[in-house]
Amino acid sequence: MLNQILIDSERPQPLVEQIVAAIRNRIDDRILRPGVRLPPIRRFAEAQGVSRFTVVEAYDRLVAQGYLDSRRGSGFYVCARPLPEPEGEDLERVERAIDAAWLMREISSESEDRVMAASGSLPVAWMEGDAVMRKLRQLARDPQARVTSYGTPQGFAPLREQLQLRLAECGVRAQPSQIVLTYGATQALDLVARFFLKTGDAVLVDDPGYWNVFSSFRLQGFRLLGVPRLADGPDFDALEAILSRDKPRIYFTQSVLHNPTSSCLSPAAAFRLLQLAERHDLLLVDDDIYGDMHAGSATRLASLDQLQRVIHVGSYSKTISGNLRVGFLAARADLARQLTDVKITTTLTSPEFAERMVHAMLTEGHYRKYVERLQTRLLRATERCCRMLERLGMTTDFDPVGGQFVWARMPGLRDTTALARRALEHGIVLAPGSVFRANGQPSEYLRFNVATSCQPRLERFVAENLAQVG
Amino acid sequence: MLNQILIDSERPQPLVEQIVAAIRNRIDDRILRPGVRLPPIRRFAEAQGVSRFTVVEAYDRLVAQGYLDSRRGSGFYVCARPLPEPEGEDLERVERAIDAAWLMREISSESEDRVMAASGSLPVAWMEGDAVMRKLRQLARDPQARVTSYGTPQGFAPLREQLQLRLAECGVRAQPSQIVLTYGATQALDLVARFFLKTGDAVLVDDPGYWNVFSSFRLQGFRLLGVPRLADGPDFDALEAILSRDKPRIYFTQSVLHNPTSSCLSPAAAFRLLQLAERHDLLLVDDDIYGDMHAGSATRLASLDQLQRVIHVGSYSKTISGNLRVGFLAARADLARQLTDVKITTTLTSPEFAERMVHAMLTEGHYRKYVERLQTRLLRATERCCRMLERLGMTTDFDPVGGQFVWARMPGLRDTTALARRALEHGIVLAPGSVFRANGQPSEYLRFNVATSCQPRLERFVAENLAQVG
Repeated sequence: MLNQILIDSERPQPLVEQIVAAIRNRIDDRILRPGVRLPPIRRFAEAQGVSRFTVVEAYDRLVAQGYLDSRRGSGFYVCARPLPEPEGEDLERVERAIDAAWLMREISSESEDRVMAASGSLPVAWMEGDAVMRKLRQLARDPQARVTSYGTPQGFAPLREQLQLRLAECGVRAQPSQIVLTYGATQALDLVARFFLKTGDAVLVDDPGYWNVFSSFRLQGFRLLGVPRLADGPDFDALEAILSRDKPRIYFTQSVLHNPTSSCLSPAAAFRLLQLAERHDLLLVDDDIYGDMHAGSATRLASLDQLQRVIHVGSYSKTISGNLRVGFLAARADLARQLTDVKITTTLTSPEFAERMVHAMLTEGHYRKYVERLQTRLLRATERCCRMLERLGMTTDFDPVGGQFVWARMPGLRDTTALARRALEHGIVLAPGSVFRANGQPSEYLRFNVATSCQPRLERFVAENLAQVG
Repeated sequence: MLNQILIDSERPQPLVEQIVAAIRNRIDDRILRPGVRLPPIRRFAEAQGVSRFTVVEAYDRLVAQGYLDSRRGSGFYVCARPLPEPEGEDLERVERAIDAAWLMREISSESEDRVMAASGSLPVAWMEGDAVMRKLRQLARDPQARVTSYGTPQGFAPLREQLQLRLAECGVRAQPSQIVLTYGATQALDLVARFFLKTGDAVLVDDPGYWNVFSSFRLQGFRLLGVPRLADGPDFDALEAILSRDKPRIYFTQSVLHNPTSSCLSPAAAFRLLQLAERHDLLLVDDDIYGDMHAGSATRLASLDQLQRVIHVGSYSKTISGNLRVGFLAARADLARQLTDVKITTTLTSPEFAERMVHAMLTEGHYRKYVERLQTRLLRATERCCRMLERLGMTTDFDPVGGQFVWARMPGLRDTTALARRALEHGIVLAPGSVFRANGQPSEYLRFNVATSCQPRLERFVAENLAQVG
């Protein structure tokens, strides 16, 4: 049966790959059935007019890929392939509750013909993929890259030094020893939560706020206390009432380009929040993941407080690569040390080569210019998105100042969940406001990604369906 | 002052880098002081006989590196540099308790003149660093690599399919949907623990066992119940007593090349353990991180039980790269789904490009041969290490069958902590047995890495000091 394999040394595909593909196809098509013995290497090589080395290499790859089994002294045999996955996955998807896990799965399962208005990321074309690939090639030639060994627990020191400089630009003074590199901001928030909180503890979060952290906290059995978010910061009346009643120890918030509203903390609100924190012995965790998307100056809690009561969290997942998973936290020296210990016990070390990549990107001059272009682009997209929403009769109370998102509501519509469910049937992934509520309460809002939402199909769908589901 | 910068177009270093280095040195040496304005780009370019583009690029890099500040319309100014780190770090190191965090820090802080007998990894020279670099270069040219976007929550599908095949070789049947990729085995163990356990819960662990997991469990407030490990598996009398008394729900263990003893579970012990698990409704978590280092057939819990009561954990940190941080867990379909949700909430997605690297390494034929060579090499090193320990009068009750470690004791020495502390002063990092005990109890054992321990300096030190500290 293998005599019919055609190997063509003129084709650009290497001979080894031609042989591998040909045998694989015959096994997949069950022309070669499990248990069949392949010709000995020498015979196959002679029959095909290729070197024995080529055949050895091809057989080896087929063993590695599970197509062949090598029996010592006896030869190569076709393996029994595992059965294909049972069906029924997709059916289940439609039945799932519209919650945070649903949103995460929907926005991770990309497909070209869907409108990803719910996406939390920039489109690939907006990012500097070529620059990342270039750095990857440089790193792959760098004898210092140490790609096989473990990284260090606290993270690649030169990147921590670079972050010291970037924090200094925001007026935050932090030594490299106060900075811990993490798997994105998500792990930074998780390290802090698991260090300070235990099952049953109360924790303050923005309402609306970053949905993924809510799921994590609920999973760990914390009591989520939502602090209503207004356009310039927390609702202080509500916050003071909660502080007196529940005595929480920690508040997870976002100063700059808050998710999902893209609003920023005003200097006055920052000052008042820090005063309250002092009075109530509250730790503030500021997730600055969108900071680099903000044009101009913005107030961060740590710029005032200098990491006394604030843990500052950042990430390059949004502007460089979500795939590299490089984030960080900056904290008081004693906390940074303890949080490093938490990191060691839960994920061991940092992936140094991803950290080297981010370091290389940041120490080039290009990053700064790219970020400036991005800011302009986001501002324009935000304007365009707001105009579309106005045409649809929607309201944007938070008056976004750039960033990735617009948070908008339709007066009269009390809950956007049904709309999101219906949109999915039309290939449009919407992010309903309830996902961003601390305890999944109904919400009249939707979050729109400004880079992916302005599409006629979405506009048409919303226009046609708002009346019906309202 | 900048007139004295010498730029030499004959030197191999690019002009941009020459300028960057020259200006940086002058700022570091405080020849150029904070606040000083640099020459305008055009003037500097003319004075040095280089293009304006070169100067723009150099200034941009210096801005990115925090040496210069760019003021719009006004030019470039030398920045105030952050103050250097306060001293005192090293002093503190010596004072730390000899515990798991200490061990982690010591083995992560590499230095050429130390004997790293405590290391948990193979030496860089034993690993396939060149192959990893080659794959990295290939990946950097692959337009499919998607280096900027987030990966998927469950992990790169082709790698999960490859793992299905590898598990099938060990007799474990798992669909790709039952496999979740993680940041090393460490995160897999952590996901399982935080899903099943809460503060105050009892959890079974091997005693001795993998120290890092103990720290994590202690941190989360679990009650660690150590099951004494014998040469062929758990001490069943002790285990049954604990099961009846404490009713734990979950047991974290290692079937193959158990850390630190390098012993393997016998088929009879595996069967008996599964029977007990059935009777006491116990979940077993099998950390198979050293599995590929074992030559020949070995018994894994999941090969018998087929993931009904067993969660199987693996990793390529030991054989491909600790830096890529690619591990996995295989579990019942419903658990795999729930554990994926835990992963999403705590670290979001997987770094797809690291997973692509591991996938590329595994689907080549070379990995299998490399692993076979490694097994032989480890067997030889184990023999050599055992001989050295015999010369020192030490006993190796566990009779290691390969793998990375030998677990040895000195008859008469009740606690090896003092020996480890003294060794550190001589530049020898020893791993004292107490670190591997469930509750840090004293231990007469030491764990030796077979690849790094056989050095005359270590042998001399142990010979000279055993008597004194005994």
